[in-house]
Amino acid sequence: MATNELFQFSIVSALMDGVASHGLPVSTILANGDHGLGTFRNLVGELIILDGKAYRMNPDGSITHIGFTASTETISPFAMITRFSPTVITKADLPGKAKVPGKEALFELLSHLLPGARNHYLAIRVEGVFKSVTVRTVGGQREPHEGLADVGKHQVSHTFTEAMTGTIIGFRSPPYMQGVSVAGDHLHFISEDRARGGHLLAFETAEKVEVAVAPIWTVHLELPRDDAEFNEATLKGDSEGIKAVEG
Amino acid sequence: MATNELFQFSIVSALMDGVASHGLPVSTILANGDHGLGTFRNLVGELIILDGKAYRMNPDGSITHIGFTASTETISPFAMITRFSPTVITKADLPGKAKVPGKEALFELLSHLLPGARNHYLAIRVEGVFKSVTVRTVGGQREPHEGLADVGKHQVSHTFTEAMTGTIIGFRSPPYMQGVSVAGDHLHFISEDRARGGHLLAFETAEKVEVAVAPIWTVHLELPRDDAEFNEATLKGDSEGIKAVEG
Repeated sequence: MATNELFQFSIVSALMDGVASHGLPVSTILANGDHGLGTFRNLVGELIILDGKAYRMNPDGSITHIGFTASTETISPFAMITRFSPTVITKADLPGKAKVPGKEALFELLSHLLPGARNHYLAIRVEGVFKSVTVRTVGGQREPHEGLADVGKHQVSHTFTEAMTGTIIGFRSPPYMQGVSVAGDHLHFISEDRARGGHLLAFETAEKVEVAVAPIWTVHLELPRDDAEFNEATLKGDSEGIKAVEG
Repeated sequence: MATNELFQFSIVSALMDGVASHGLPVSTILANGDHGLGTFRNLVGELIILDGKAYRMNPDGSITHIGFTASTETISPFAMITRFSPTVITKADLPGKAKVPGKEALFELLSHLLPGARNHYLAIRVEGVFKSVTVRTVGGQREPHEGLADVGKHQVSHTFTEAMTGTIIGFRSPPYMQGVSVAGDHLHFISEDRARGGHLLAFETAEKVEVAVAPIWTVHLELPRDDAEFNEATLKGDSEGIKAVEG
């Protein structure tokens, strides 16, 4: 795939319906890019792909660098990945002003940096020192087909308040893709020492951070095949539910 | 592209918002397959692609086989195309029973033929003798940004009641893609003599017809780039409006 094209496996509405038993090996996902995020079979943990390396953020807070062998392939039921080549790189204060949360400031900054991509996807990377980071890690389905909204109710969240160098990786998806992707900014965080991270809920920066972004015009959506769970799901697209658990 | 992968340019919500000034040359669309449909700049007429040949069904009822030269490329603001390789081919009565309209009978038949593709796209082709066919052809925007729902209000429709050999070409899109594609079956018709056709509204068959279908698991969505009209559109996804004008 060319740079800044999105490869996505499955749709977020499938996760909302608890469709998480099958998926693609992370090695197959990695063949399509070097920058991405997702989750794992049965919604156990968060996937972040950074510079072509895949990490699994486990519910207990630990992080595993995923290696692959033919016999022990890790499966992802939902993932987004691109071969990232930023078109804009800038240094920015996030939040730029007092009382503006970091995620909001980042959202505004990206909209300002790429005014011609209002209705496109964006690939996003933020690198620097963070004063505070709050992440969550989904802890897995307690029963088959448990939906992501319910899994989210017993997720583990952590707030790290010591200054920490790290990277935010993610995507903005346009509003009309809600249900297929997560409309708005969907971001995962990993610390430089690869010891902490998860689905990003909030952050504050300690100093200027480097923000890199690229618009995405081409989307390759791969749907689950020969998967009875996906086939039988209603996939109604619970927009409020997605905002609550993934926003 | 491999067989039975979908290439789609733009989204149907853009047409609903009247985004139809720019697009891809039909020659570029044809590079991605041999079976497809779409529309033209300013919503003037219907596009059908059959065995790798593209036809323009004009508002006056005439049909043009589109040839290409470097200087006179025909532009499509929305199109769907695949390299069609049917996985099921069958002969069927449509309608199978009295008082069931042809489109409904076809919908039921396809669902029955591919029970494992409830949440996938389908590529569809029907060939045979038709007793009656009703089509419409959009007549173009009367002003810039006129949306498809309004354009549809002054569309031309024709019912052909003499027996006619022809081909239906189209796609089924899953419900969760409403707004991106047209949820449900979206079908265009062209007669064997290439003299009549349009967006299919209704039909009756005279005898058994050949139905060919394939599931689609891979979708390549190409979004308009550097297109201010697309960038500024709200793209809210008017599901009722899409059903009314494209159903």
